[in-house]
Amino acid sequence: MDPKLDLAIREVVIANRILAHENIVDASGHVSARHPLHPDRFLISWSRSPEHVTREDIMECSLDGSPLNGDKRPPYKERFIHGAIYETRLDVKAVVHAHPEEVLPFSVTGEPLRALISSASMIGTHVPVWDIADKFGDETSLLVENIEQGRDLAKCLGNYNLTLMAAHGIAAACPTMIEVVRVAVYAARNARVQMAAMQFGKKIRFLSEGEVNVRGAGGYFAADSHGIYRAWEYWALRAGCADLLPERDESTLRTI
Amino acid sequence: MDPKLDLAIREVVIANRILAHENIVDASGHVSARHPLHPDRFLISWSRSPEHVTREDIMECSLDGSPLNGDKRPPYKERFIHGAIYETRLDVKAVVHAHPEEVLPFSVTGEPLRALISSASMIGTHVPVWDIADKFGDETSLLVENIEQGRDLAKCLGNYNLTLMAAHGIAAACPTMIEVVRVAVYAARNARVQMAAMQFGKKIRFLSEGEVNVRGAGGYFAADSHGIYRAWEYWALRAGCADLLPERDESTLRTI
Amino acid sequence: MDPKLDLAIREVVIANRILAHENIVDASGHVSARHPLHPDRFLISWSRSPEHVTREDIMECSLDGSPLNGDKRPPYKERFIHGAIYETRLDVKAVVHAHPEEVLPFSVTGEPLRALISSASMIGTHVPVWDIADKFGDETSLLVENIEQGRDLAKCLGNYNLTLMAAHGIAAACPTMIEVVRVAVYAARNARVQMAAMQFGKKIRFLSEGEVNVRGAGGYFAADSHGIYRAWEYWALRAGCADLLPERDESTLRTI
Amino acid sequence: MDPKLDLAIREVVIANRILAHENIVDASGHVSARHPLHPDRFLISWSRSPEHVTREDIMECSLDGSPLNGDKRPPYKERFIHGAIYETRLDVKAVVHAHPEEVLPFSVTGEPLRALISSASMIGTHVPVWDIADKFGDETSLLVENIEQGRDLAKCLGNYNLTLMAAHGIAAACPTMIEVVRVAVYAARNARVQMAAMQFGKKIRFLSEGEVNVRGAGGYFAADSHGIYRAWEYWALRAGCADLLPERDESTLRTI
Repeated sequence: MDPKLDLAIREVVIANRILAHENIVDASGHVSARHPLHPDRFLISWSRSPEHVTREDIMECSLDGSPLNGDKRPPYKERFIHGAIYETRLDVKAVVHAHPEEVLPFSVTGEPLRALISSASMIGTHVPVWDIADKFGDETSLLVENIEQGRDLAKCLGNYNLTLMAAHGIAAACPTMIEVVRVAVYAARNARVQMAAMQFGKKIRFLSEGEVNVRGAGGYFAADSHGIYRAWEYWALRAGCADLLPERDESTLRTI
Repeated sequence: MDPKLDLAIREVVIANRILAHENIVDASGHVSARHPLHPDRFLISWSRSPEHVTREDIMECSLDGSPLNGDKRPPYKERFIHGAIYETRLDVKAVVHAHPEEVLPFSVTGEPLRALISSASMIGTHVPVWDIADKFGDETSLLVENIEQGRDLAKCLGNYNLTLMAAHGIAAACPTMIEVVRVAVYAARNARVQMAAMQFGKKIRFLSEGEVNVRGAGGYFAADSHGIYRAWEYWALRAGCADLLPERDESTLRTI
Repeated sequence: MDPKLDLAIREVVIANRILAHENIVDASGHVSARHPLHPDRFLISWSRSPEHVTREDIMECSLDGSPLNGDKRPPYKERFIHGAIYETRLDVKAVVHAHPEEVLPFSVTGEPLRALISSASMIGTHVPVWDIADKFGDETSLLVENIEQGRDLAKCLGNYNLTLMAAHGIAAACPTMIEVVRVAVYAARNARVQMAAMQFGKKIRFLSEGEVNVRGAGGYFAADSHGIYRAWEYWALRAGCADLLPERDESTLRTI
Repeated sequence: MDPKLDLAIREVVIANRILAHENIVDASGHVSARHPLHPDRFLISWSRSPEHVTREDIMECSLDGSPLNGDKRPPYKERFIHGAIYETRLDVKAVVHAHPEEVLPFSVTGEPLRALISSASMIGTHVPVWDIADKFGDETSLLVENIEQGRDLAKCLGNYNLTLMAAHGIAAACPTMIEVVRVAVYAARNARVQMAAMQFGKKIRFLSEGEVNVRGAGGYFAADSHGIYRAWEYWALRAGCADLLPERDESTLRTI
């Protein structure tokens, strides 16, 4: 197998297992990677619970959500989230859809979620909220069931790393798998801290644009830095799938 | 053994173990199925903690709560909850009684519990609250100790999937075991999200009648759909009782 | 060994392990039983973390807190809590001192903790709060370091099952070990539900005097009932010490 | 190896494992000890997740944060926190930097964290908050990336045991490792209880100066007392690293 494809598949599996172990997904939720050789395809498990995903479960889909290679296994109903984002955002290489419950209060109240802890800087100073009812009415299943709905979601996401989906969950999109998993995990943590801080009824010190930018511009939290890789390895060890990590060449990591 | 009875007993055991593992029941709480061959009976464990229930623990009761077949093992004190609901609701094939603590604040304040996350759509736009004191006074044990009290509870439940029991817990009733377990698990999650959302003091986007109906009418969350079966299998794996799952014929599942 | 003494020692060990597993105690906190043959003594571990207590760790103390039988192992500093309660309350056979964090907010605000869920009926309609500073000033260690402080606490406890200790924890006292463990576990759960319910800002339906009395008078929650023994056995199984449970003669349990 | 150095290294490893197991650190956060033979050096792991730190991972750094002995392994980016505190506070022998999420709301709102439970007396009646933006502007990474930033933090810490770092975490510093781990663990617990107590909207009984002083002056919570060592041993057992504890000579512990 092509080494880039092999690595991409490993990362999809590791991400599934990490997100399950960190309580970001349960039987629902999914994670994908853009195909490293065919940018008009993405790699995603067939309809399995993330905790149980293995290499063999990964299928290929076209950006309109059709399984390729004659794969007959049932796909996730909401695979259109992934396809539409890859179609719209050429910089994105990895997408997570999940339903972390700490984030949901922000999706149904108009109260904005916003980075206020340093570890969550990647969610930024603004997180858009997409409500399927705005365009598709109040008699939907709330699920993204077709590519039109996916495109509407992708439009709301715009150039952000994260969007909330009203009464439903999140969609996160980043240039690397390591980053998108980080966004999903820390969105939940940021939400917990923000809800607690709001109860004091005082002015909150959110992260400034400057702080968010410093942390986003190839700094400490870029995927090739030592700090962020350490978290990826830590999560994989906890999730019991460290055997899937590629051989690590420390010299390729920036030691910041 | 009749295959339908065998399957019903397996499902009662699996449901006990799932509800224990997902922290919906502890030493208290119970789950039953209507007998598939004798609709005037139901299947339920004798008075054991749900985490430890096995096939051998399942007994048969008449709808008035009397153990059948000369079974001398001590039954749950509150088995009348189950009998009265099966008696009143001919569509119901499975019942859960539990005390998830996240739901209890809604049972003692008049604050209505209401679906606001998509995964909890089955609890609906209205959840009735039954207070034993309304009819039986304020010197009861709060427990449903006889069939009259059970019938009063069943009357309050009406045609809903879920009722709260003031200062006590919940009773959930559905056409399938997979659905009733889902109602119990997601009632607790919905309660957590609703309590958090309410703290913002803003108008909350609850699920609309249309959204609830779309999701309830043989859609994504019907027991024979791929999505809901995936959750059932996931919970059973986590609870360590996947060996009790019947052989799965994927072709009988709708791949939505 | 005398069978009654053997049973009492087993129960002290089981209670230590249960309270540790249910997160009521950690390295701190302790549980004792009145000596069944010498009512002027009590049985308690030497200064070990409850999770690690075994039969061999149990020592005997006089009611003034002095280790007996020449036992040189270091005792818990706060053993005076136990002695003073046994001295004052002749009906009490078992005492727990713990620091469950959910209860602590009620100990420092004047907000009364009060039973509002059926499973916590034993904490009653009033829970007194003892503040060591009231009698001993604001330069104490907050710990009950001598028998005088213990007696002042016992006086505050009065005939209740539970008292809060301001900024510190709880003392619970009951006629049986099974009941006192139940009080400690459900005090924490009641506190969680009460804190959540209070956030709605509505009138709360607390348990009535009648409901508390029905449940306290040899009813469902007496130590010899099937229901309460089921919980005791469940907790012991979870804590990994079910081997210490005595042979169970089901016929001696009331099957309610 | 010198016995004092051997003990110091063991304690750094044990502290790493305890803090990971008690959820005070995850992939981020670190703990150090002043070198017992060379007070101008400190002992700290290279850039590993605390849960996985072993004896072999401990490196030596000078107080300006430079790895010594030609050690080429990547150090923690924020090692300057440790060096600057050892430089400023000659009494300090152990330092923890962590990001416990319960504490973070107090770091971004101006709401003061303050001891209100006896077990957290060591955090005292005042906890300073350091905001990197006050001196270094709002375009930093929020991380302590050089010795100047470390010294500014140490200045804010002053003679306290604990300081909050706005939008980021905590730095704790004590004369012994056992105490500094205690401060970190109980800061989180105190924060949870304080947030809950504040929701009642009533006056809170915080610990008095007198209570804090009694508990701080070589009393129950000094590192050589039986009570505090019991907690250290308990945490080490839970974290699975009790094999690293030195042989315990009970006679050297004060049995209070």
